Amino acid sequence: MAQSLTRSPLAPASFPDLPIVKGVRFASVAAGVKYQNRTDVMLALMAPGTTIAGAFTQSLTRSAPVRDCQAKLGDNSQDGAAILVNSGNSNAFTGHFGQTSVAQITSAVATATGVPEARVFTASTGVIGEPLPHDRIVVKLGELADGLSDTRINDAADAIMTTDTFAKGASAQVEIDGQTVSIAGIAKGSGMIAPDMATMLVYIFTDAEVEQQALQALLTSICNRTFNCITVDSDTSTSDTLMLCATGAANVDATDDAQFASALETVMLDLSHQVVRDGEGATKFVEIQVTGAASDSDAKIHGLSIANSPLVKTAIAGEDPNWGRIVMAIGKSGAAADRDLLSISFGDVLVAEKGWVSPDYREEDAAILMKQDEITIKVDLGLGAGHATVWTCDLTHGYIQINADYRS
Amino acid sequence: MAQSLTRSPLAPASFPDLPIVKGVRFASVAAGVKYQNRTDVMLALMAPGTTIAGAFTQSLTRSAPVRDCQAKLGDNSQDGAAILVNSGNSNAFTGHFGQTSVAQITSAVATATGVPEARVFTASTGVIGEPLPHDRIVVKLGELADGLSDTRINDAADAIMTTDTFAKGASAQVEIDGQTVSIAGIAKGSGMIAPDMATMLVYIFTDAEVEQQALQALLTSICNRTFNCITVDSDTSTSDTLMLCATGAANVDATDDAQFASALETVMLDLSHQVVRDGEGATKFVEIQVTGAASDSDAKIHGLSIANSPLVKTAIAGEDPNWGRIVMAIGKSGAAADRDLLSISFGDVLVAEKGWVSPDYREEDAAILMKQDEITIKVDLGLGAGHATVWTCDLTHGYIQINADYRS
Repeated sequence: MAQSLTRSPLAPASFPDLPIVKGVRFASVAAGVKYQNRTDVMLALMAPGTTIAGAFTQSLTRSAPVRDCQAKLGDNSQDGAAILVNSGNSNAFTGHFGQTSVAQITSAVATATGVPEARVFTASTGVIGEPLPHDRIVVKLGELADGLSDTRINDAADAIMTTDTFAKGASAQVEIDGQTVSIAGIAKGSGMIAPDMATMLVYIFTDAEVEQQALQALLTSICNRTFNCITVDSDTSTSDTLMLCATGAANVDATDDAQFASALETVMLDLSHQVVRDGEGATKFVEIQVTGAASDSDAKIHGLSIANSPLVKTAIAGEDPNWGRIVMAIGKSGAAADRDLLSISFGDVLVAEKGWVSPDYREEDAAILMKQDEITIKVDLGLGAGHATVWTCDLTHGYIQINADYRS
Repeated sequence: MAQSLTRSPLAPASFPDLPIVKGVRFASVAAGVKYQNRTDVMLALMAPGTTIAGAFTQSLTRSAPVRDCQAKLGDNSQDGAAILVNSGNSNAFTGHFGQTSVAQITSAVATATGVPEARVFTASTGVIGEPLPHDRIVVKLGELADGLSDTRINDAADAIMTTDTFAKGASAQVEIDGQTVSIAGIAKGSGMIAPDMATMLVYIFTDAEVEQQALQALLTSICNRTFNCITVDSDTSTSDTLMLCATGAANVDATDDAQFASALETVMLDLSHQVVRDGEGATKFVEIQVTGAASDSDAKIHGLSIANSPLVKTAIAGEDPNWGRIVMAIGKSGAAADRDLLSISFGDVLVAEKGWVSPDYREEDAAILMKQDEITIKVDLGLGAGHATVWTCDLTHGYIQINADYRS
């Protein structure tokens, strides 16, 4: 990007120390796909026996690399696997040139690593509609293969950034049958989208052994409570990719292990929150807790309606406890609601109940809460047991500046 | 509103000269509901025999006046009718107090005008969650009734404004059986929404005679091509109200008259465009023409997905012909699309076709178009005969300023 972006005020203090995940090595390189003076390609190489699960954008205009990954998922795990990601160009809406670029890159990765093409996954993130200069990546594969190391996951996180203002990582370790299993993940994304549809990409690695179908089921289930519950601006990337790779190198079977599932959810939740914290122009991290809905899916519809409402998001930016806009977002969501059963709180301050402002509500109390960096909005529909939590950020001049004032 | 808003750069030069519509008289008054030093209540009184059709917000948290209007629509037309609208307070999310206010006002209007309560329609627009000080309106009803005049429709348009930067009116006249029938309408709204959910309100009057069920069918049909095809920010008011009143005073039956329907559509389209032109912070008026969709409803879904995308709207604000964001919005819409059959134009400049940028496309050509105040985006899906046109405005710092920087 031409502009240099200020680090998000919601960013963590520093990139976390991530544990080594046995059976996976990383490398990164500066290939000059578009950006100068920084790394822009990462390679991850995984041991034979690795199982891989994935979740991808639902977009009907999704990119060539996404289509290629979707076709390959679930294949034989005996041959190892490789993931190659470039930033600077998304290889999306590039017609048949897009497929050619994917084929050229996967073939070169196969040659350089010995992993069969059917087990080489790629992703591209950055400007769309321009042909990917895949030759610049292909000539760097020897250097990438030579540089592989089990400690370089942080370099990989750097290489996949586009408009991100900080690199994103998270990890967990659990003991299973007296042995340690590690989970480490990296992500990029400034929300669902970014200038040039810069894409959310997430790669999570574990040295646990997990059967592929169980891994996919686990990923899908946790994704619905984490990455599918965040939104920055309601726009959807053509390239969103989330891959979870279990190398099995720790020689511990974690299939259907509840403790492992819980640790994985912690990592995925952490990464998804980091994406929101890097939302374009974000100054507030907002958690919306919806309870009492007719169903869990209704709760999520209400939550996302609130989270995506430009009026709610600008009120939060203005530190205005404007609960009327929350009522509005609930009313328009399409899910069941009854005005007279609804209650709304900011943090622990009850604002509205029974179709009316709460008699004890003092706006000064809510106004103090709105000045904080992290804001919790609680909505109870009073209808049933359905619940969901979603996360978003505010809508500020910074968002307009990034997306309108600069040519992308 | 505390802030004084600059007149939209997209506003028409002046309020139009509206013809007298026989059988309806208007009055307005400064009741001090919230605003000072301006009119804030309008009354329209219609002759016996008037038929009324309406369209209202779909919100589940809709206001007490909306619920009251919906219950009364379609009633006996032999007793005349009255419409009373106040600005400054929306009487929404005000619990049982809301119904009480509506009852007090409709009762007072009935007494002052001789129209039965069942034929008195009200609307309120402005801040939500605060009890409506209906006494301030009730005490002004004598003055309102005394001031009724068939030439004061422009004063009525002024009285219903909240964050509007200009009053909105439109008209048409048609000859039927050698006699002139007039249609005149007024509207308020800065998009679907405004600070405090200030509401879109539209009142259209004609002296034609139209049977009530035919009038309702006509209104619903035209509404789907006009007011239901505009969006400013995807938010939905709790109070949106559109009423069409046919007084019959011209003694011309226009039921099922094609020329009348066409004139009515002209008026409704004009008013709906004026609402977009007063969209909060708007600097560009955008028409999105979708053709070649699998169905008309698919075309509208794609059109609204493009029109509501914050990324598309900020690109337009930045005068950036960023067609990749249009591809993104189509991909996420949920309606049928095939990347390789899609074509996109800005005005007459073909940008993308066959899943790829058009070989003849020169960005300079599109960049010139983007500098204009009025922008046309054409999308052809290449799938079928479905088509729709929707209208929106850009997303600018002005929107953030109005909705975040000021306390509402």
